[in-house]
Amino acid sequence: MIPHAWEGIPQQRNYPYNCWWVAAFGDDIGRSLLARWLLDTPVVLFRREDGTVAALEDRCPHRMAPLSIGRLQGDTVECGYHGFRFADNGRCVRVPTQDSPPDISVRYFPVREIGPLVWIYLGDLAVIDQVPPPPDMPWLTDRAFALRHGTMEIAANYMLLKENVLDLTHLGYVHASTFQVTDIVRPPDVVVDGDTVHYRQRFINAPLPAGYAHTLGLPPGTPWNRETHGSFLSPAMQQGATDLSDPSLPDALPASTRFAHATTPIDQSRMLYFWVLGRNHANSPQEMNGFADFIKKGFAEDRAVLEAVQALANRNPRRGGHDERSVKADAAGVQARRVIARWMARENAATA
Amino acid sequence: MIPHAWEGIPQQRNYPYNCWWVAAFGDDIGRSLLARWLLDTPVVLFRREDGTVAALEDRCPHRMAPLSIGRLQGDTVECGYHGFRFADNGRCVRVPTQDSPPDISVRYFPVREIGPLVWIYLGDLAVIDQVPPPPDMPWLTDRAFALRHGTMEIAANYMLLKENVLDLTHLGYVHASTFQVTDIVRPPDVVVDGDTVHYRQRFINAPLPAGYAHTLGLPPGTPWNRETHGSFLSPAMQQGATDLSDPSLPDALPASTRFAHATTPIDQSRMLYFWVLGRNHANSPQEMNGFADFIKKGFAEDRAVLEAVQALANRNPRRGGHDERSVKADAAGVQARRVIARWMARENAATA
Amino acid sequence: MIPHAWEGIPQQRNYPYNCWWVAAFGDDIGRSLLARWLLDTPVVLFRREDGTVAALEDRCPHRMAPLSIGRLQGDTVECGYHGFRFADNGRCVRVPTQDSPPDISVRYFPVREIGPLVWIYLGDLAVIDQVPPPPDMPWLTDRAFALRHGTMEIAANYMLLKENVLDLTHLGYVHASTFQVTDIVRPPDVVVDGDTVHYRQRFINAPLPAGYAHTLGLPPGTPWNRETHGSFLSPAMQQGATDLSDPSLPDALPASTRFAHATTPIDQSRMLYFWVLGRNHANSPQEMNGFADFIKKGFAEDRAVLEAVQALANRNPRRGGHDERSVKADAAGVQARRVIARWMARENAATA
Repeated sequence: MIPHAWEGIPQQRNYPYNCWWVAAFGDDIGRSLLARWLLDTPVVLFRREDGTVAALEDRCPHRMAPLSIGRLQGDTVECGYHGFRFADNGRCVRVPTQDSPPDISVRYFPVREIGPLVWIYLGDLAVIDQVPPPPDMPWLTDRAFALRHGTMEIAANYMLLKENVLDLTHLGYVHASTFQVTDIVRPPDVVVDGDTVHYRQRFINAPLPAGYAHTLGLPPGTPWNRETHGSFLSPAMQQGATDLSDPSLPDALPASTRFAHATTPIDQSRMLYFWVLGRNHANSPQEMNGFADFIKKGFAEDRAVLEAVQALANRNPRRGGHDERSVKADAAGVQARRVIARWMARENAATA
Repeated sequence: MIPHAWEGIPQQRNYPYNCWWVAAFGDDIGRSLLARWLLDTPVVLFRREDGTVAALEDRCPHRMAPLSIGRLQGDTVECGYHGFRFADNGRCVRVPTQDSPPDISVRYFPVREIGPLVWIYLGDLAVIDQVPPPPDMPWLTDRAFALRHGTMEIAANYMLLKENVLDLTHLGYVHASTFQVTDIVRPPDVVVDGDTVHYRQRFINAPLPAGYAHTLGLPPGTPWNRETHGSFLSPAMQQGATDLSDPSLPDALPASTRFAHATTPIDQSRMLYFWVLGRNHANSPQEMNGFADFIKKGFAEDRAVLEAVQALANRNPRRGGHDERSVKADAAGVQARRVIARWMARENAATA
Repeated sequence: MIPHAWEGIPQQRNYPYNCWWVAAFGDDIGRSLLARWLLDTPVVLFRREDGTVAALEDRCPHRMAPLSIGRLQGDTVECGYHGFRFADNGRCVRVPTQDSPPDISVRYFPVREIGPLVWIYLGDLAVIDQVPPPPDMPWLTDRAFALRHGTMEIAANYMLLKENVLDLTHLGYVHASTFQVTDIVRPPDVVVDGDTVHYRQRFINAPLPAGYAHTLGLPPGTPWNRETHGSFLSPAMQQGATDLSDPSLPDALPASTRFAHATTPIDQSRMLYFWVLGRNHANSPQEMNGFADFIKKGFAEDRAVLEAVQALANRNPRRGGHDERSVKADAAGVQARRVIARWMARENAATA
């Protein structure tokens, strides 16, 4: 009855609690109660009257109803079952049937809103100061970049998406007919800097794939410089980037595209995937909308593959015990797994 | 892998076998086979030719087909697979392929039909005489009361509904917009009498909520006497009551409303909820139908809350280990849990 | 938490790996990738360019994507995630990101195509020569027989269907209104010959049931000779047969009907049921289509019963611990269970 698992999808938790994770986009949250499962924890999110975001455990300690079936009363959350109210620090401030509330509380979770993203800390509050803050991604708040974003629920362990975006050689297969970028056939250079994993691949005077060329108003195949790079910034966040530049204008600002791939485990076999794309060129609303639609088609292709991988793991095929076989193109992903292992080890050490 | 549970929803069975439970309404059962899961046991119910109700284990001991896919032949049940027939006492009386039936039987279950309800005993037959009979509820057979009834399957442990109807302070929240009875804000008086738990709350010369007033043909807010009371009669049955009386006519018969809340576990996380409502006033068919429709709206609200509580328990949130925190308004429910614990202890003692 | 099980549906695997099983009909397989779960193993099937059938484990050893979401490239299977290619012997022959493929492979499975059926061997290759080949069924390749076939997924352990077709006394109950063969009321003669179980039942000068009579152009009830017989040939295959003959023409070739009942476990509680029916008479396309439609109605009735039995086992009724009670009519089925037990014992001995 012990299911088979492989390194990429362990049976046991492979995500740290003591980490900032993305909980939502800011525009998901308003003056009503938003329920989300994050790191296998029920969370209720809302905006206070002053517009800031608050997050509480989504479970009333009285009779265990989800608080999210209740309603906001000012900056307090009123349980929909017996009307208990909880302040934004989790303290019970009112029990309708008695004059003074008992000493009851729910957990509260620190949040930070940065650019379009709302980050949450679901870990041990005693060590929050030792935990790296949400990674810095200047383009998310740089007005030169127009942004689009979206959320997908994917029935797969969150690391499957991390590894997907750390090995772009899948573009020629998963996205062959959508993105039509088929020249990423060699493994990129990989550099590990502490707990950050960088990859980088340069195409000098290389024929522009059609999608890029079209965006720049050039004929497909025009010789151009292109740099594809990215970083595993934390268990929660990965960045992808493409910079295009005219070989004849080496000092000009490149045409840059940026991706934020934030993945937050719902549980061990599902994730919320929060993506943001940004562009400092071709960024009229109409162009950005077209770009986002184009990208969403590709992300749906990724989802189909990752869910098929997870479904195979969930089904636990009998006698399936062979291990994964990694190749050179997996270098960045394998390094990311090691970073995750260090996060987990630190968390376990802090708990012990 | 051990799921979290709280006191109200234990992982292990919290319902006694050695107890009379409601299996069905009499009008559910006729001259065909009705399959029900009750106390995690497959049961097949039918009426004999003389109109009485019989119940057998719904599983042929030959090749384990549900007997309910077969058919009635007189007072015997014929299996739909190979035609074995079982009498209403569970004995196999015919195997088509041989001249005399072998010594095979299925379990049979005693039943009692009282008013609109069919009760069943699924416990140890050796101790049935020591088990309290179905509780006496005279209004169910009192012609002064018009009755309406219904059945709901609720995906929640049966005790969640028990506790729901033992703490009416939820009316102001769950049913605020339907029942509009918002003045039950103080815990009722609770009296424990053996294994019966009573609560009672009196409103003297208090403004009549709109629903009650309308039924009596009075303006909402008319000062009137109202008594809300109820009893946990057995693990299977709870009674609720409201008596309204004119303060100027202290000796007049009150306008009484009665509820029977029978809950029968399907298994540890689901129940069948059999409800009956009765009224000795405003009880023309049209008024009763309107009343039943009104009540059903509220019961659907209860179901939504209870299923949300159970879903949270089923999902077993990680690190969720805090216990329930009870308040004074939970007194009747907490007493009911203690009664259940005594039933379980007696059953375990009888078995040991 | 240990579920109840009965002899017919054990909790543990009751099918041998070291056995030839039916994987598909030949016409299911072409120049694309067909995914099937067989014996709890993910399998991908395809035809090579020369028309022969190949089968591989349906899981890329690189990042565990199902190979079946990829595509055929000549006689190799290309993974849809990163483009790894595998030859029909399972060897990885291409990794796009590097010049030479690493030493990686997937399991390959021997297949044999015989008549309309494709057989597969998913067991230990070291002992394949000691395993009985697919059983010989000459009528499947005899041009005197017209054939029709179909596939059903049934949510039941594969042995439930075996036992169903080994005890035809169910015809009078499950198929009373469809097949209308109600005279099979006595157990047949059963002979065990090594690991083959035969049953046989003769009706001499007996009234022809309507279905048979109609096929022969005779009035229902015409006195005729009929022989119903069948064989449990292997865990994978069972044969059924009916031979009808004119009592006045003892030397004439009988009007024969044949059934192949191939059942392949998907897992312990589901099967693929591959059936073939053949007839050496009344076998114009129109008559055969009508016959197949008629038979399919009956098979749907069997499926309903078997799924009800399995659902009862899956639900694991509490306190249900009584064992199956077999009668004389179960002789063939009980013998088949013993044969299965011998297959399992041989396999365990070979492994030990």
